[in-house]
Formats: sequence, structure tokens, C-alpha cells
Amino acid sequence: MTDFAATRAMFHLPPGIVYLDGNSLGPLPLKALERVNQTMRGEWGDMLITAWNRAGWIDMPRRIGDRIGALIGAEPGHVVMGDTLSIKVYQAVASALDLRPGRRVILSDTGNFPSDLYMAQGLAHTLANGCRLQTVAPEEVEEALDEEVAVLLLTEVDYRTGRRHDMAALTAAAHRKGILTVWDLAHSAGALPVDLAGAGADFAVGCTYKYLNSGPGGPAFIYVAPRHAEHARPALSGWLGHEAPFAFAPDYRPGPGIERMRVGTPPILQLAALDAALDIWDQVDMNALRKRAIALSEQLIDGVESACPELALASPRAAERRGSQVSFRFENGHAAMQACIAEGLIGDFRAPDIMRFGITPLYIDETDVARAIDILARVMREKLWQRPEHQTRAAVT
Amino acid sequence: MTDFAATRAMFHLPPGIVYLDGNSLGPLPLKALERVNQTMRGEWGDMLITAWNRAGWIDMPRRIGDRIGALIGAEPGHVVMGDTLSIKVYQAVASALDLRPGRRVILSDTGNFPSDLYMAQGLAHTLANGCRLQTVAPEEVEEALDEEVAVLLLTEVDYRTGRRHDMAALTAAAHRKGILTVWDLAHSAGALPVDLAGAGADFAVGCTYKYLNSGPGGPAFIYVAPRHAEHARPALSGWLGHEAPFAFAPDYRPGPGIERMRVGTPPILQLAALDAALDIWDQVDMNALRKRAIALSEQLIDGVESACPELALASPRAAERRGSQVSFRFENGHAAMQACIAEGLIGDFRAPDIMRFGITPLYIDETDVARAIDILARVMREKLWQRPEHQTRAAVT
Repeated sequence: MTDFAATRAMFHLPPGIVYLDGNSLGPLPLKALERVNQTMRGEWGDMLITAWNRAGWIDMPRRIGDRIGALIGAEPGHVVMGDTLSIKVYQAVASALDLRPGRRVILSDTGNFPSDLYMAQGLAHTLANGCRLQTVAPEEVEEALDEEVAVLLLTEVDYRTGRRHDMAALTAAAHRKGILTVWDLAHSAGALPVDLAGAGADFAVGCTYKYLNSGPGGPAFIYVAPRHAEHARPALSGWLGHEAPFAFAPDYRPGPGIERMRVGTPPILQLAALDAALDIWDQVDMNALRKRAIALSEQLIDGVESACPELALASPRAAERRGSQVSFRFENGHAAMQACIAEGLIGDFRAPDIMRFGITPLYIDETDVARAIDILARVMREKLWQRPEHQTRAAVT
Repeated sequence: MTDFAATRAMFHLPPGIVYLDGNSLGPLPLKALERVNQTMRGEWGDMLITAWNRAGWIDMPRRIGDRIGALIGAEPGHVVMGDTLSIKVYQAVASALDLRPGRRVILSDTGNFPSDLYMAQGLAHTLANGCRLQTVAPEEVEEALDEEVAVLLLTEVDYRTGRRHDMAALTAAAHRKGILTVWDLAHSAGALPVDLAGAGADFAVGCTYKYLNSGPGGPAFIYVAPRHAEHARPALSGWLGHEAPFAFAPDYRPGPGIERMRVGTPPILQLAALDAALDIWDQVDMNALRKRAIALSEQLIDGVESACPELALASPRAAERRGSQVSFRFENGHAAMQACIAEGLIGDFRAPDIMRFGITPLYIDETDVARAIDILARVMREKLWQRPEHQTRAAVT
């Protein structure tokens, strides 16, 4: 049993706001504030450089990697933290290509997060060996798998619609053609049960500032399956991935296993916030979380569909085919989301017409969802999105 | 006039410790503690996702980049923050190679920081087009410049000895052969006057956790000269470097100028600490800082040379050929540095035999240097480095 009232009490939640945007940026865990303060004052401040050893900073990427690994079904010792998700995508795809010499195609889908596609394009340009990115519609991925494809790069849960790929089935299909898989878990880690080892995934990457609540710009993670860990070349071969970083040898030698995927000096303040945020997960059963997320999602879908006929469900109707978000299409979606925010309901908008709501049972309950439905219904009924102040487009929403 | 007593008072300096390791990790600026707390509670906590716009997070990499640009002689609008120094080395070298098609050599020197060399090796391996890293001794760089070299990758100040390259002269020599330069300013930014524009540098990169005091794992910076800014391809082409990140277009189009060197979501907590740390520099004259650093360095060299005959100066004797550190060679240097730390003098050790002391006038004065000499003299006189507890080798010192 997970006590979701108890987990909710562990967050700073501004009064009067319904926050359905934890799939963009999770809220502040109260312990993160304390932990970062302690890391700054008691470690950086008092221990200075010696904190790299005395406070265990140097081991944080591996230690915290294992905490995340436990949430995504990774074998212990095969996840490490660092950099951003985009950088980790590059590193994983480059490593996978290196393990499939002679094949030239990185296959992805048009629902993938654009940065994953951009990083793959940048890598293909840099390689200048005929390697190219090919994208197909999400439902056409399986039939596009052939012997030219080196790497299948997919985000499990679509950032716009919440549509969820079948990781185990697509990984098995890829393997039948000799293709390696890179799974982006941005909208999976902390959102639903993930079983990387069970699915036979080759590489996985993800961010921590969404469902894992590490704070703005928190570090990314990378997983390399045990069978590849001693063969993968990291491409981004930095000193902290070296076999002996403090020997300062002139030539790169990859460190053991996942260690080689480390690159530069890790962001200790962000890692401290993440470490505190992960404490919350110690008392959460992921299956209970998933069950509750589905119930809250159904509540939102039912409520919106009966109160707001202008909004069309963009997410799959079948719960098992959705991640932990609910999206609706509305042509004035940007202005409508601005109006919702002004009324105290924070979700976000994704071009061209998606209003997206994250379902995060750690701190969201039935009362929040009921209020969200009320606010959305009023925004639509009173056409609040027509107000001039909601017509501007902000840089980020 | 810079009031160095006033700048010193802006740091948390643990009592009883002489800290000559600001060239590894600068100490905690008191304002950084307040600023990060405010960013977490008042921005992340209270504004949630809306802080990306309302608190200006999205612009921090450019805004803070300009603050650093002012310290290194960059043209406004040509520096941006993000990632780690190793990642920025990769990005700069890849971009420079792309601007010199047909040339295959990345030239560096054996005194460069190993991670710079490792990243170049990783890039060369990934390119798999015959591109290679060539290293020569620091004093042989100029004669090794020829028409096969695409990129000259150098760290201005040697991390071990403090030897300083002549950036303007080497850049001019490189340009005469059609070679682009990538300058690593890890031990320059905040350590001494740097004039990137005046030197005609093409690319520069650096870290902020040393002389700029941003805290452990603070973000790196990258500079691209205005003449290259609209031509350079970022290689690591992430969504925040896209011309229109929030259009979520399927294809990458580089953003204007330096914006394209952004990659993923920036680490806001680390940037907040950096921003507060940079406030200190508003009242510092870099020439006054340099003059004082030289005086303190001479004090240390004179004192150690007369008190510790076992230690051999590893840094250039001429002040203008040194960065802002003083290094000595001693075969038991690792144990001796452990003994110094136990006695309250923190410097650091770099294999195989370098004892390194950073000179940072923002918070170090003549009294500190005198105490450092006393401690070092006692460690050597009483052979404290022979104690068994100092013979172990820690992961990081």
C-alpha cells in the first residue's frame, strides 16, 4: 500500500493551484530544499574540495543511477547520471551505431521528441558516412525494421498525445532484424512501471525533472544493458568515464561498464536535489501508482468529455496504451491553456493544438482533478480564451 | 581600485583553513546560498513551470554568458552557458572541423587537460574519416602548425604547472596556416585578463567552478567568434539550440549565432549559484586582480624556496608566463599534500609529482600565504608526509 496523502505532504504545492504539469517540471520536494542547503553550506562551504571524497560527490552519479535503475527495471550497476537527455541520446545512439558497423539507418518515429531527432540528425551530419535518420509514423515502426537499420530510437510515451509504444514487443522485433534499441524514458521513468531488463532493451536514457521531481535542469540518466556494457564506446569520452581519471593519462581508456558513460564533472547541486526527491519513491509501489494514475486519468477524460464538447481526446482511449498524461486537441489550445493558468489550472500546450495534462498521483488527487474539470469547463463555457491577454504566445508554457 | 578585503568577506571560508585550491573548486559565495534557496522556494516552488518565463530561466544561459564574456574579452552576445567543459570541447572541435573540410588533424599539446584530449580522441573515432588527434610538447606547438591541421586545441594555462601559452601569438600563427583555434580557459577565466576578441580566437570554452566560484559541477561556457557564429554547426544539435524550439518542428534548424550552441535543458540551480557568484566580479578590476595574484605568487615562491629545499618550482619563474597558480615537484607529493590538508592547508596534487596551489586574491591574502608557507615548511621539516595515514591515495584530491 502506498499512502498518497503522505507523499503529497512531501511537496511544496502553492495554494490555490491545480498542477497538472508535472510531466514538464515536477514540483519542489520539501526535502530537496533542505538537502541542497546542506550540500551548499555543510559540504561545499565547509569541506571545500575535500567534499568530492568526504561527502561522496564523486560517487553520486553511480549511486543515484542505481536508485533510478530500481524504478525502471534496470540491473543494479547499469545506470549512471549526467549531462542532459539530449546529450545522452547522442551518446547512446553513437554507441549503438558503433556496435552495428555497416548499417546506416537510425530509425525513429514522427512522434518522438524533436530534440531526440535533432541530436540524431547532428550525429548523422557529423559522421558524414551516409548514416541518416529515417522517421516513420508511430504505427509504422514495426514494418520499417529491416537489415539497413542499425538503431531504433524511440520515446516510449509520446510527449504530445501520451501514446505508449509496446517496448517489449518492439525491442523483440528489432532484435529479430539485428537492430539495437535506444529507449527514451522521459515520460516513463516515475510515470509507470518500466522493465528494461525484462524487455531486453539495449540502451535507455531519460530525464529526471518531470515525474522524478529533481528540479529545473536536473541531470539525465543512461542505461546500457549488461551484455553491451563492456563493449560500448561512449563517443563522448570524458575524463570521468576513464578507467583511471586521476592518473591523467594521455590516452582514453574506457572505465568499467556503465562508468564509461560518465563525461565531465557532475552537477552536484542538481544531484543533491534529485537524491532528496528520490527518497519519496522509497515508499511508493509503482503498480499502485499506475493504478491510481489510470483512475485519475479516466476521471479527467470523463469529466472533460461531458463538460467540454469543443475538446477532442488526443490520447489513446485505452488506458494500457497511454502513459501518465491526458491530452486534448483544441484549435485555440494555446490561448485556452493561458486562460486555464490564469484561473489556477496549470497544464501545458504543445504545438500545434495540444492541451496536455500530466497525471502524477504522488501529489495529485481526485479533488484536484475535479477542480481541473471545473476550471476547464468554465474556460470553455465562458470562452475565456478569447480574452486579449491570452492571445500572446510566450516562449515556454 | 578593488577592495579585496570586501570581496573576501563575500565568501564562506571555514575558520582555520588556508584554501589554495580555488583552481579546483572555488569556495561558497554567501550570496549563492541565498540565491539558490530563493530559486528553489520562490521560483521552482511557487511559480512551478511558469518560472521558465516569469523568472527568466530560459534566458539564463545567454544572460549569464554575457556576464562571463565581459571577463574574457568576448563580444557581447557571443558566449552561452551549458553542459560541461568536456562536452563543450567536443562541440567546439566538431564545429571547427566542419569549417575546415579536407583537413584531418586536431593538434594539441601534451600539457593539455586529459579530458580535452579524450574528447578529441572520441570525436576522431566517431568521425572514422581519418581524422586524428596529434599532440606535441607545449613548446613545439608553433612549429607543428601546418596545412594538414584543421584545429588547434589548447588550454591557455597548464593545469599542472601553470605555464601559460601566448594566446594572441599562437592564434595568429595558426591563422597564417588556415587553422582554427579552440582555447580552453578553465584556468584563465577569472584568473587573469583574457582578451578573446583582441587575440582573434575562433572558439573558446571553459568551466565556472574554479576561479569563478559557481560550485561543484557548475555549467561550462562556449564562445564562438562573431565571424563564425552564423556558419558554425553545433554537432550536438539539441532543441534549445533550434531556431524555434517551441515550434517542435521535425528538422533541426540552427538558432541565431551563439544560441545554436545550446543543447538541452539548462541546470537552473547551478546557474543560479553561478549568477550570484558573478555579482562579486562587478566590483573587481581584472588588472588589479592580476597584479595582486602575481604578488601573492611571488610571496609563495620565495617563501617555499627558502624554507623547503626539497620542493622544486614546476611553474615558470617569469610571472607573465604563469597563470594564477604555483606548482612544485616533490616525489612524495601526494602524501605531502595529504599532510598539508591535515594541517589546514588545502592545495591539490596532480600525478605524478605535482603539488599545486591556486592563487585567488578574491579571498586569499598575504596572511594566508604566510601561513601556507609555515605549514608547508613544517610538513617538510618534520617529514609529516611519512605518516602512514597520508600514504593512502584517495579518489580525488
